[in-house]
Amino acid sequence: MSLEKLLDPRSVAVVGASTKEGSVGRIILEELTRSSCLLYPVNPKYETLLGMRCYPSVLDLPEPVDLAVITIPAPAVPAAAENCGEKGIPYVIVVAGGFGETGEEGRVLQRRLEESGRRHGFRILGPNTLGVFFPEKNFDTVFVEHGDRSLAAGGGVSVITQSGSVGIEALGLAGNIGFGLRTFVGLGNKCDLEETDFLRWFGKDRKTSCIAFYLESIGRGREFLELAADISREKPIIGLKAGRTEAGAQAVSSHTGRLAGSDLVVSGAFKQHGIQRVLDDQELTDAARALEKLPLPRGGRVGVLSPAGGYGVICADYIESQNPRAALSMARLSPETEKRIIAETLPFASGRNPVDITAGATGAMYGKAMEAMLQDPGVDILISLVFFSPPSIDDSLLEQIAARVRTADKPVILFVTYGPFTDRYLLRFWKEGVVGYPSILRAVRAARFLVERKNLLESMEACR
Amino acid sequence: MSLEKLLDPRSVAVVGASTKEGSVGRIILEELTRSSCLLYPVNPKYETLLGMRCYPSVLDLPEPVDLAVITIPAPAVPAAAENCGEKGIPYVIVVAGGFGETGEEGRVLQRRLEESGRRHGFRILGPNTLGVFFPEKNFDTVFVEHGDRSLAAGGGVSVITQSGSVGIEALGLAGNIGFGLRTFVGLGNKCDLEETDFLRWFGKDRKTSCIAFYLESIGRGREFLELAADISREKPIIGLKAGRTEAGAQAVSSHTGRLAGSDLVVSGAFKQHGIQRVLDDQELTDAARALEKLPLPRGGRVGVLSPAGGYGVICADYIESQNPRAALSMARLSPETEKRIIAETLPFASGRNPVDITAGATGAMYGKAMEAMLQDPGVDILISLVFFSPPSIDDSLLEQIAARVRTADKPVILFVTYGPFTDRYLLRFWKEGVVGYPSILRAVRAARFLVERKNLLESMEACR
Repeated sequence: MSLEKLLDPRSVAVVGASTKEGSVGRIILEELTRSSCLLYPVNPKYETLLGMRCYPSVLDLPEPVDLAVITIPAPAVPAAAENCGEKGIPYVIVVAGGFGETGEEGRVLQRRLEESGRRHGFRILGPNTLGVFFPEKNFDTVFVEHGDRSLAAGGGVSVITQSGSVGIEALGLAGNIGFGLRTFVGLGNKCDLEETDFLRWFGKDRKTSCIAFYLESIGRGREFLELAADISREKPIIGLKAGRTEAGAQAVSSHTGRLAGSDLVVSGAFKQHGIQRVLDDQELTDAARALEKLPLPRGGRVGVLSPAGGYGVICADYIESQNPRAALSMARLSPETEKRIIAETLPFASGRNPVDITAGATGAMYGKAMEAMLQDPGVDILISLVFFSPPSIDDSLLEQIAARVRTADKPVILFVTYGPFTDRYLLRFWKEGVVGYPSILRAVRAARFLVERKNLLESMEACR
Repeated sequence: MSLEKLLDPRSVAVVGASTKEGSVGRIILEELTRSSCLLYPVNPKYETLLGMRCYPSVLDLPEPVDLAVITIPAPAVPAAAENCGEKGIPYVIVVAGGFGETGEEGRVLQRRLEESGRRHGFRILGPNTLGVFFPEKNFDTVFVEHGDRSLAAGGGVSVITQSGSVGIEALGLAGNIGFGLRTFVGLGNKCDLEETDFLRWFGKDRKTSCIAFYLESIGRGREFLELAADISREKPIIGLKAGRTEAGAQAVSSHTGRLAGSDLVVSGAFKQHGIQRVLDDQELTDAARALEKLPLPRGGRVGVLSPAGGYGVICADYIESQNPRAALSMARLSPETEKRIIAETLPFASGRNPVDITAGATGAMYGKAMEAMLQDPGVDILISLVFFSPPSIDDSLLEQIAARVRTADKPVILFVTYGPFTDRYLLRFWKEGVVGYPSILRAVRAARFLVERKNLLESMEACR
């Protein structure tokens, strides 16, 4: 099944399009005018909307469009969807809540919607969903604010999320420091299309280089997992499955009306099928940022470069702490590397890992030290701690670092801290192709995601 | 020993004061002009500096000032310090590195400095330190950029840090979302004054309500711990002790020339003496923010209020996960509370904890739900997840929440997410007295710090 007409449609009917300030029908219509889709507003109350002819019903449209986005309240949805079916529209997104998640009345509405789809053969995303955001084409049905322009720059991560809010809010935060989004899909109540359909599609999508999902329940579990095992040989898959604890699972059931499944089973199955499990939205986006952008390391030996001894120590402690995800260790630098670092930076520098080039180091010294460490065969991953506050540092440090990252065949991860300017600098680094985080813990965790992926690939290779 | 003349001096000599662009002597002199201290620039090269008379040596000063800040390079420091001693100056801050941390030559210089202090009876902070930042009086010797104005607003947390960089960079980041700083002290090489001296002072300082430290080594360990045990009955003490792992401990020794001590011993001793141990700079500042600002809970039963079911589930999972710091559990709301929430918000809301008032909720409904949950006797702590992106939410939500927090006798902790505006909103909340974090994990962790503190106080009470 091709999902192209859903995720990248040429023509779209907006059912319930409106000019009413703040209404969902207006927000979505306005957003869609920024895409290159041919739009057909549908609403019996208007003759025209935003300069476009407005149709009383989808039945009146001059052509069967690729997709209908239904923005009207739940009770009116089944009839509108039925019309879409009659018109031969192949995909429908139902935005409204008030269906299966709310009680018996809603369940009846949702069953009518499902039946309509089955009878006519159209496929449904939702109901109760934010829909789709596809930056490459500016195709966007997400009606809550998600104004970070950095997300619109696009990238290789396709995101499947059962909760639209969790997905879009997480991306909004991640976008502050850079995030490469290929596609966002909110599944909502999953009355028809579900995670497995999108996993399959993103597995084949050439421009999707990493898949990240947030799910509360998994339908067709066996199929989903086997598909994941196949795809994960080619692309990293990162999974957040909420409902780990009993209280969480109960909350899932009251949130979605579905069972969350035993958590131990989920953890084992994920691992076995190549899915890297994460525990929250920040881990999900942090992992995706690193796995999309960085080369995989040959091992887990980490070189740490710091302009402040104290941060080097905290970082070393995190690296050497036991962690179930993947083991890291502090790299042992060769005596030549140690000498070279001191010769090319400052006599007070410490060349031993964690390397401390002191707050007196300039951007150029920083670059030289990185080069020496990246060339040391004992280093698999380089974590660089970056401050802009010392008087000897200026913006040229950005280019010094970016130049080394561009030519390195080893992953480089930054910890960046600069008070109120931290996110801005992280974003500038991101645009130069450099991955950084605003905490030591998150930078070290990103290294673990890379090593976990490498280990996964090796164990899948061994099991062939 | 009173440290008032060091931390809040009336008159200060700046040895090495300068007008050379970017020099430490210039940065510190300019910063100190913003305080209310009477300044005496000292430098034989100038007659005047910034309109002030400049003296060739401290020996030429018309009075023995409270404090000399020595900003000249290491080799010239012992002679300058000797002059301070002859002049009868009681406190000296030595900024330069190049002493005990760099090798034999530096160690000789440091010993000369120490001896001078002992002979004349003046006390030394440093060498190799950023010195002191005391927002209440705008007294600030930190020469690296730390421009977040929100730190200057002040508060009740006094910070003692062996690494000036770790301390000031961590505060810079924490200041983005609000941090109440009473005093910052960088210990540097601790050739004389050390952690125990400052712990004692901050223990007595009426306006210090919470003490946070970062240390790589602890001198006079027994005295430090016994003092901590005493003080922690009155004020929370949060400790970051780097060098937890072997690699970290080795790094400490190459960074400071001191032994880090066995980590297991440290952990046990901290706990026994009322110190709440944290693992990195972010935990340190996160814990201090919560412990300074929030009332202690009676227990660990957490109510979770969310406008998005998915985030409620993730939060419930974190709350119910095992954690060595302190146990939390999901509160059981009374049937009355559950009914009241639905009646006062939306019919589709879920009144069971985690409460989901849906993305359709307004600010006023948010406030009503908080009120209902805070009044439920089964709730000890309220974690509220706050989004500003849904169309039904506007800035009035800030006031709705702040009003409930002001009257609550239970701690309220927010998770706030709003893409590029997240930190700005967290800071606005902070100024209204509301503590929030930009990640679920950090919000839940903050609740654990509060319960850990409550448990500590109870066990100290039981051991009396």
